[in-house]
Amino acid sequence: MKANFSYSQVTEKTIEDLISVFGGSGVSVDKEKVAAYSKDEVAVHLWDKNYEAEVVCFAENAEQISALMKYANRHRIPVTPRGAGTGLSGGAVPAYRGIELSLERMNRILELDAANLTMTVEPGVVTAEINKTAAAANLMYAGDPCSGDASFIGGNVAENAGGNKVVKYGATGNHVLGMEVVLPDGSISWFGGKRRKDVTGYDFVHLMTGSEGTLGIITKIILRLLPSYSFAADLLVPFDSVKRAIDAVPAVITKGKTIPCSIEFMDKCSMMLTEQYLRTKFPFSHEAEAHLILQFEGNDRESLADEIEKIGDICMEEGALEVFVADNRTTRDKLWKGRKSAAEAVWSYAPTQIANEDIVIPASEIAVFMEGLEKISRADSVKYAAYGHVGDGNMHVTLYVEEENKNWREIIEKARRDMYDMVKRLGGTLTGEHGVGLKRLMYAPQFLDAAQVELIRRVKLAFDPNNILNPGKIVPWT
Amino acid sequence: MKANFSYSQVTEKTIEDLISVFGGSGVSVDKEKVAAYSKDEVAVHLWDKNYEAEVVCFAENAEQISALMKYANRHRIPVTPRGAGTGLSGGAVPAYRGIELSLERMNRILELDAANLTMTVEPGVVTAEINKTAAAANLMYAGDPCSGDASFIGGNVAENAGGNKVVKYGATGNHVLGMEVVLPDGSISWFGGKRRKDVTGYDFVHLMTGSEGTLGIITKIILRLLPSYSFAADLLVPFDSVKRAIDAVPAVITKGKTIPCSIEFMDKCSMMLTEQYLRTKFPFSHEAEAHLILQFEGNDRESLADEIEKIGDICMEEGALEVFVADNRTTRDKLWKGRKSAAEAVWSYAPTQIANEDIVIPASEIAVFMEGLEKISRADSVKYAAYGHVGDGNMHVTLYVEEENKNWREIIEKARRDMYDMVKRLGGTLTGEHGVGLKRLMYAPQFLDAAQVELIRRVKLAFDPNNILNPGKIVPWT
Repeated sequence: MKANFSYSQVTEKTIEDLISVFGGSGVSVDKEKVAAYSKDEVAVHLWDKNYEAEVVCFAENAEQISALMKYANRHRIPVTPRGAGTGLSGGAVPAYRGIELSLERMNRILELDAANLTMTVEPGVVTAEINKTAAAANLMYAGDPCSGDASFIGGNVAENAGGNKVVKYGATGNHVLGMEVVLPDGSISWFGGKRRKDVTGYDFVHLMTGSEGTLGIITKIILRLLPSYSFAADLLVPFDSVKRAIDAVPAVITKGKTIPCSIEFMDKCSMMLTEQYLRTKFPFSHEAEAHLILQFEGNDRESLADEIEKIGDICMEEGALEVFVADNRTTRDKLWKGRKSAAEAVWSYAPTQIANEDIVIPASEIAVFMEGLEKISRADSVKYAAYGHVGDGNMHVTLYVEEENKNWREIIEKARRDMYDMVKRLGGTLTGEHGVGLKRLMYAPQFLDAAQVELIRRVKLAFDPNNILNPGKIVPWT
Repeated sequence: MKANFSYSQVTEKTIEDLISVFGGSGVSVDKEKVAAYSKDEVAVHLWDKNYEAEVVCFAENAEQISALMKYANRHRIPVTPRGAGTGLSGGAVPAYRGIELSLERMNRILELDAANLTMTVEPGVVTAEINKTAAAANLMYAGDPCSGDASFIGGNVAENAGGNKVVKYGATGNHVLGMEVVLPDGSISWFGGKRRKDVTGYDFVHLMTGSEGTLGIITKIILRLLPSYSFAADLLVPFDSVKRAIDAVPAVITKGKTIPCSIEFMDKCSMMLTEQYLRTKFPFSHEAEAHLILQFEGNDRESLADEIEKIGDICMEEGALEVFVADNRTTRDKLWKGRKSAAEAVWSYAPTQIANEDIVIPASEIAVFMEGLEKISRADSVKYAAYGHVGDGNMHVTLYVEEENKNWREIIEKARRDMYDMVKRLGGTLTGEHGVGLKRLMYAPQFLDAAQVELIRRVKLAFDPNNILNPGKIVPWT
């Protein structure tokens, strides 16, 4: 199926028209501002060209967005919606210029409904605010992306963000019960609602989740909350081999008869770079080849302590070098600061010659994957750091070239391709939580068969016949 | 968007062609057989006309189904896929004649992968078999529809079946990681896979889930398993008013800081009809106006006992008449046999003049809803029995007319419309787990706005441009 990619340019008349929708303070053509709002966290030097919108609009409500979409359809101008710009795949980067639509002013928590265990929010609320507001009511929002202090919930939903608690609670989509959406033609619709179950029509709530702003613009979100736990404890468990660390994961779950709320992995390289970046020390950072971080929650202090002890024993049986228990706020915070800083730490060490990956494979294959990665590293002369959500099989591998090398793009590309071939062979896929966006779309057909790629195009155009909402994303179009 | 609803008839040549795909034993035109395979659990006398296929085919693998779909597209013959026929919405009833496709011969459990906590199955496996196979490996499949002893997992996925454990574990879709699908054009594709996270492309796994066999035919399913618990206990809690029973539900969750794996409700009428049907006695069946059934699981016998005691105390504070603990197999089985027989019990009491409903509303509104239902019952001269998954806000209301009355259709229809108006007003929707299918499609536009109805049609036709796969379902087409 072919889509139309010929668009109108933004003119002075367009700006006037946009001001009539958003007001003077809701429209900017300031060069620096437009450039800043055209970026996400994918470094600009990694793009093949300079992607930049022509104008930024700041929406305050769904009605303005509805008017915008009707206008954009009439004039064939692309619209790219944007949250906090913390994305890692170019989802909010305007591939075809046009209008960048910021949701940052739609940042209200509209309702906390304790009886129904729901919170209704606008898309521009910072995720950590949601966690805090729920916690203050003895409830819990179980979404926990590493970017939570900065990212918006709208972006989390649009990308189906993962994070540290997916192994137990599922990704963002698992906590979304309903949403108000401005469809590409400007209609305002509700998918789902304040209810735990709904089979009235197709499941558009979860089709929207992870659709990267290509099917509609989310303007309200009903989130599912859970009762919060009274106690939590974390284990930091060093191992002298990657394989031993990985093999301990299913043992913890099956022998321990429990799913921890986090099962995180850091290899030696990412652990040492994180120490360096934070100017701190973690136990066994030099002796261990890999660390697991496990988190457990419970309402009963004693039975949580029993569980922790049991899991600690299982880890030791699986060959752990030691088991460190973090059961007070200070040590827990230090531990998680380490884990959550790994991405920045690796990035700041090798900022220019780098590829951040987000692959997923069946969890049982991670040890095989890590062995293969070591081989690729040697064969292709690249370095790597690896950390991630090992309980979900989701690993963030950062490939980098340490020395200045003008061929770094080719070197990294070769290693990436080799790694993807292995991921495919192991039954894995391209991206677990960062999204395809613009960054990965040329790789998507390796992991999605031709029928599915075509179906993605058809569904996109069923929602957006004129192809004006965040066009050119997710799969190759030309 | 308009769809083509003019189809070819099945001829003798068609039968020959189908035999060349499925073999002689895979095709039947036997009158009785075709009639039987054209039904589900919606009683035939409730339909406005006699829906019957022209031929039944029995698939053994995806390749046969692929060949069928290519053939059906070429000849414009409708194909209606079918699981065990336990559906309650006419999802498997052939609205436009043509070919009924039974998946009952695709009934193998293909793999239990304990390391990855997954089971891969064909669509014709009986759901209870999956529960048993997982349990034998100390794992748990958390899907638990009341029909589990008879329904197929393929039907559960196609309808996004709910059941008794949704409040804690989510509906069927929450346990589906991936699926092989024959698309309407005959392509065989894989959505998702053996991984907990996947944002490579749109979330077609969950779009397929609950799409009632209208978007593709599911031929393999990868299910997510959980570690099984060592101990479980149930509480049967009678209340002297419906309102007190309903109000106890959020108290259990928020004061108890726990989500039970089941929170079920039975009103006095359904409890007494169930006693009569099973020729047994439940405590307080005559004294109580409503019963709650709560189920809890844990690995530690003592802390489970503590939890049960705490929840019992909360129920007593909320005005329970008594709290009965079922912690051995016999009493637990008796209790659940009662709950799971409620539908049949009500049905066998009033088999001809009846409407089974599946509405969902925000859980906090159920007391208001039940009061309103009592008013409607009086105003419209209908009786009702109500039971259901109160923790999810999902109530099965059975409206019936007790005395022989030739106007029973109009009487029930009036009460149903009044009830739907109230559901809509309370922020609820039409169906939580049974599906829209053929039975409810004329009511769907009351709960889905015009933009969403149109989008459902567009997405259906994006998957199935010739409209040959289970046509005429979910929303009105004419």
